Amino acid sequence: MAFLDDNYLLTNNTAKTIYDQIKDLPILDAHNHADVKEIRENKNYSDIWYIEAATDHYVWELLRKRGVEEKYITGSASNKEKWMKLANVFEQLVGNPVYEWVHLDLKRRLGIDLLINEYNAEKIWDITKELLEQENFKPQALLKEMDVELMCSTDDPIDSLEDHKALKESDCKTKVLPTWRPDKSMHINKVGFPDYIKKLEERVQKQILNIDDLIEALQETHDFFEKMGAKASDHGVEVPFGYIIDHQKADQIFQKRMKGENVKKEEEKAYISYMLHKFGEMNVKSNWVMQIHLGAMRDIRDTLYNNIGPDSGGDISNHFIPIVEPLKAFLNKFDERLKIVLYALDPTHYPTLATLTRAFGETVSLGAAWWFNDSPIGMKRQLEYIGTVDLLMNFAGMVSDSRKLMSYGSRTEMFRRVLSDVLGNLVEKGQIPLELAIRGAVHICYERKKVLFNF
Amino acid sequence: MAFLDDNYLLTNNTAKTIYDQIKDLPILDAHNHADVKEIRENKNYSDIWYIEAATDHYVWELLRKRGVEEKYITGSASNKEKWMKLANVFEQLVGNPVYEWVHLDLKRRLGIDLLINEYNAEKIWDITKELLEQENFKPQALLKEMDVELMCSTDDPIDSLEDHKALKESDCKTKVLPTWRPDKSMHINKVGFPDYIKKLEERVQKQILNIDDLIEALQETHDFFEKMGAKASDHGVEVPFGYIIDHQKADQIFQKRMKGENVKKEEEKAYISYMLHKFGEMNVKSNWVMQIHLGAMRDIRDTLYNNIGPDSGGDISNHFIPIVEPLKAFLNKFDERLKIVLYALDPTHYPTLATLTRAFGETVSLGAAWWFNDSPIGMKRQLEYIGTVDLLMNFAGMVSDSRKLMSYGSRTEMFRRVLSDVLGNLVEKGQIPLELAIRGAVHICYERKKVLFNF
Amino acid sequence: MAFLDDNYLLTNNTAKTIYDQIKDLPILDAHNHADVKEIRENKNYSDIWYIEAATDHYVWELLRKRGVEEKYITGSASNKEKWMKLANVFEQLVGNPVYEWVHLDLKRRLGIDLLINEYNAEKIWDITKELLEQENFKPQALLKEMDVELMCSTDDPIDSLEDHKALKESDCKTKVLPTWRPDKSMHINKVGFPDYIKKLEERVQKQILNIDDLIEALQETHDFFEKMGAKASDHGVEVPFGYIIDHQKADQIFQKRMKGENVKKEEEKAYISYMLHKFGEMNVKSNWVMQIHLGAMRDIRDTLYNNIGPDSGGDISNHFIPIVEPLKAFLNKFDERLKIVLYALDPTHYPTLATLTRAFGETVSLGAAWWFNDSPIGMKRQLEYIGTVDLLMNFAGMVSDSRKLMSYGSRTEMFRRVLSDVLGNLVEKGQIPLELAIRGAVHICYERKKVLFNF
Repeated sequence: MAFLDDNYLLTNNTAKTIYDQIKDLPILDAHNHADVKEIRENKNYSDIWYIEAATDHYVWELLRKRGVEEKYITGSASNKEKWMKLANVFEQLVGNPVYEWVHLDLKRRLGIDLLINEYNAEKIWDITKELLEQENFKPQALLKEMDVELMCSTDDPIDSLEDHKALKESDCKTKVLPTWRPDKSMHINKVGFPDYIKKLEERVQKQILNIDDLIEALQETHDFFEKMGAKASDHGVEVPFGYIIDHQKADQIFQKRMKGENVKKEEEKAYISYMLHKFGEMNVKSNWVMQIHLGAMRDIRDTLYNNIGPDSGGDISNHFIPIVEPLKAFLNKFDERLKIVLYALDPTHYPTLATLTRAFGETVSLGAAWWFNDSPIGMKRQLEYIGTVDLLMNFAGMVSDSRKLMSYGSRTEMFRRVLSDVLGNLVEKGQIPLELAIRGAVHICYERKKVLFNF
Repeated sequence: MAFLDDNYLLTNNTAKTIYDQIKDLPILDAHNHADVKEIRENKNYSDIWYIEAATDHYVWELLRKRGVEEKYITGSASNKEKWMKLANVFEQLVGNPVYEWVHLDLKRRLGIDLLINEYNAEKIWDITKELLEQENFKPQALLKEMDVELMCSTDDPIDSLEDHKALKESDCKTKVLPTWRPDKSMHINKVGFPDYIKKLEERVQKQILNIDDLIEALQETHDFFEKMGAKASDHGVEVPFGYIIDHQKADQIFQKRMKGENVKKEEEKAYISYMLHKFGEMNVKSNWVMQIHLGAMRDIRDTLYNNIGPDSGGDISNHFIPIVEPLKAFLNKFDERLKIVLYALDPTHYPTLATLTRAFGETVSLGAAWWFNDSPIGMKRQLEYIGTVDLLMNFAGMVSDSRKLMSYGSRTEMFRRVLSDVLGNLVEKGQIPLELAIRGAVHICYERKKVLFNF
Repeated sequence: MAFLDDNYLLTNNTAKTIYDQIKDLPILDAHNHADVKEIRENKNYSDIWYIEAATDHYVWELLRKRGVEEKYITGSASNKEKWMKLANVFEQLVGNPVYEWVHLDLKRRLGIDLLINEYNAEKIWDITKELLEQENFKPQALLKEMDVELMCSTDDPIDSLEDHKALKESDCKTKVLPTWRPDKSMHINKVGFPDYIKKLEERVQKQILNIDDLIEALQETHDFFEKMGAKASDHGVEVPFGYIIDHQKADQIFQKRMKGENVKKEEEKAYISYMLHKFGEMNVKSNWVMQIHLGAMRDIRDTLYNNIGPDSGGDISNHFIPIVEPLKAFLNKFDERLKIVLYALDPTHYPTLATLTRAFGETVSLGAAWWFNDSPIGMKRQLEYIGTVDLLMNFAGMVSDSRKLMSYGSRTEMFRRVLSDVLGNLVEKGQIPLELAIRGAVHICYERKKVLFNF
């Protein structure tokens, strides 16, 4: 079998049969980190480094692992210089999905069949430079070509959503919906918290003196997002604290923090819990899906955080965190009232979460293998396992989670091939009838999302 | 390969060769949740819903996940109505072993080759209705047909075992042994604890004023179970507390609880530890196997527990519990004196437990992949791993753990096929000689249990 | 496929192509437990029990699992009697890698194609007895035959390294380097700690009155090891404590312990942390690799520890330990200054460690699947996973970790075959080009170690 050919990731004929039925389904991407402004402006991209690496810390981390200097990653070097450095070490990335994604982009999107290495580096730079000047490689054209029917960006509640609005009114064929992600109002111990509250005050043009004011302000943004078509909120938490906390206690913690005082670990837990419950209530009212990304320990590497900032490659997963104990009151509180999607970062948390979503019935679902597990082996192991504990038909489906637009197609292709292979294996082993495998694959890739997210 | 055909779960020829050698071995089932009264009475079953779903919370959970109302699961609807609802969503359960087990039952036991779906629902209802009226589908005939040589039910110490006695004296070909499961005397913080102690007093016709009385009463039931042929005890613990606790402390905790006072977490741990050691001593005396099912967190979903009660689908596994620290004193205390089988619910605990059973030698064994992992992928991953860390030949073997009699055959078939496939792969990869794989398979499926459990 | 034939562990043709390219590469073994005196003396081995089982607690544990009496394992029976007992139960070890390793040794090293069982036991004893009297089965000849270019033993800082010195000056073709493993100076709560410090005083001929003296003494041994060619230190810790601790506190703890007082858990953590940082600094100065073996819980089984001592089979892995929290200060402190290799014992720690090594860039690497996971399935699962999260090209490579010289070749063969199979599967699935898979395999097996360890 040749690199990225038609049978890529498909290890048996049934898998191929299944993949044929889903490969051309439109993309519904319920979670990504799209630069909506970029899509709205719809300008040509400058070069291959920009579209493949400039905004993607997945790539940065791997270049660092191969000894590329920071200057050529996030630093002052030109994009061309950066690309040449990347090409020099790219062969050493084999095995990591970045190697496959970038080549898929080249091959499927740009029609370039060359391998990235030091010999082809210049050539690829030149060809893509020229291609990217064409109309059909502008962001909106790319979205159309990748058949992205709908995608959800990730947005701060204070965002004015001007770009979303403009896009909606444009003739862009792809529906771009905002997602309400109020993490900054939840992570009370972050340095920027009080400043953020100020910005929120400005956004809603009201003073925020206590936690009621805060909730009211956030509700206002939630309403606004709803009006703008949002169908989901999203929440990033290391530990999913969802204890039941009384209003007065939460207010005290908030006010203490706003006075510039220190908030203790226990108080932070209480505050996060309180807010998560409030967000849950807002979502119930709007019938939104509440997405919880749990288990990411952020900014662990000081040199990256201090020099480059968050989302630069210093995040990890951590097996040693509690999930059930902090989360159970939340799940019970919202039982059957709220659609919840749980994304686990550490694969050792899958069994716990799969049994938890199984126990809590129709409204609680597992999300896609995420980040470090968004790879053929990561997705395969997840699907194989969670499908037997929970139900494949209740799986929330693939999300690109991508930080670069060019990548939606390739990431979707990788997922669909893995799904086909997993289902194909079940058929080949006599565990499920072929017809149901095909129907299931279509359901997971398309229908399920429409129903779950109300798209 | 077709759904559930002869090669079901067998991915290579060696696996088929091995399976041929074990498929007809009699079933020895060391742990299940049989309704012994049902077997003793030996009446015809009413219908397909009753035999496949009425007593099986595995099925209930999946119906809930697909949005079936509780009325049609554990509620007031008729069995026919429930069956029709089940059939309506059954196709959506593909990937979960329930889909395979129920179809296996239909196919292997009842000779029905239809897929369960809305079109076939009525037809299957009718055919099975008629079949189940026949003599050969009564419980004892089914056990004979499935070649269940011996099975162990799970029983409370206060049980009079009248049904076991009657069965023993009947001409039922299957040996049905009781298993002593004194969980209710161990879980001191459960609401019903004091009432349970009263019932135990009645059972043994002695007052229980302190922990010595309690142990004496339990020992009396243990003796009675032994006389009735029991070969094992069974214990369900979330965390396997096995600290060494002195008698006086345990007695104080017990008396405190019996006075209606609250028992703290630390006291609960101490009490459970004390009891587990006492149970261990009783088992040493009788040369019983002590089965410990660890890691299940019970009754997590309030709506289920409050409305339907325990064992209704609100149980989960939890990666975040200690095992070694609480258990090590127990293992050392009974080192080489007591046969222990450890069943882990969360697969992330397998490595810890596999190394622990390896370290503690001949008398400590790993039990079968359990509950959420009693599936082709769950069993395969477990066997592949534990067999390289511990020894396959020390594995305690498959148990059905089933809550419905019809299912023993299908569950056993699934296990034997997976085992054959795992061993077949080892042979195909040149890791073990074929002859030893076959001998090993026979050993695991039959001989090992005879020796371990003294059957 | 036949037992241990040419295609052993290779499940596709690409895997075979890759294996052909790496099977004859010389062995560079960065970590083992070689008996250097044995190599230096270069005497003939007495018998097959000695070379295969006498020094290997992997074998002991399995014999115990099959009920062999301690007398025939570590006890007073003759080597012949022990071998006969081993042979009696050896067939029951199928599935465990010991079964494969010992047969590989027989087949590849000694040219004996017999299976070990009670029938062949005597014959194998006799044949090997004769063979082992030949020149070409002396330790140095065996190392040459296995093409061991370089190997690192594991040594205590107080070791005079006389054997290493003598070997260096001999015409032994294999380079045998020492590794500095100062565990005894770190595990402050062990009974023998004060005595060990006395021995260290004698070694360096200086009084050790405080922690500065201790560090100075250890530095002196570190310098000596460096002069003797050492390229790495090694550290065994259950939890990798690496907190930042001030000098005064560490000194107090040390002095308290030296006075015979008890050191509390918290103080132990602080002391270990302090020492780990000091060892780190020493390694930075020498540009050594710092190997950390984490997660082993030692001497859990009292009967083994009390009767036979450490390293006798009472060690386990434990999922329930923190890693990130205790280790992060250390990783940040030495960021980009120190080459670190992390070996995880429990596979549930792989995701955490893979993301951690990914985040910390070029200087932090993952070590080989270790001990209980040094098996085809253990290595396969590790390589498949870590290669997609971190990078295969940053993997620190296979180490034998062996306690018997005869085994280096077999263990290396097993690893190389698994690696070929993992890479072969990636190629077959279209995930990487064949040429890069081959280059990657060679890199991992040879070049990477030269560069990383400065061999």
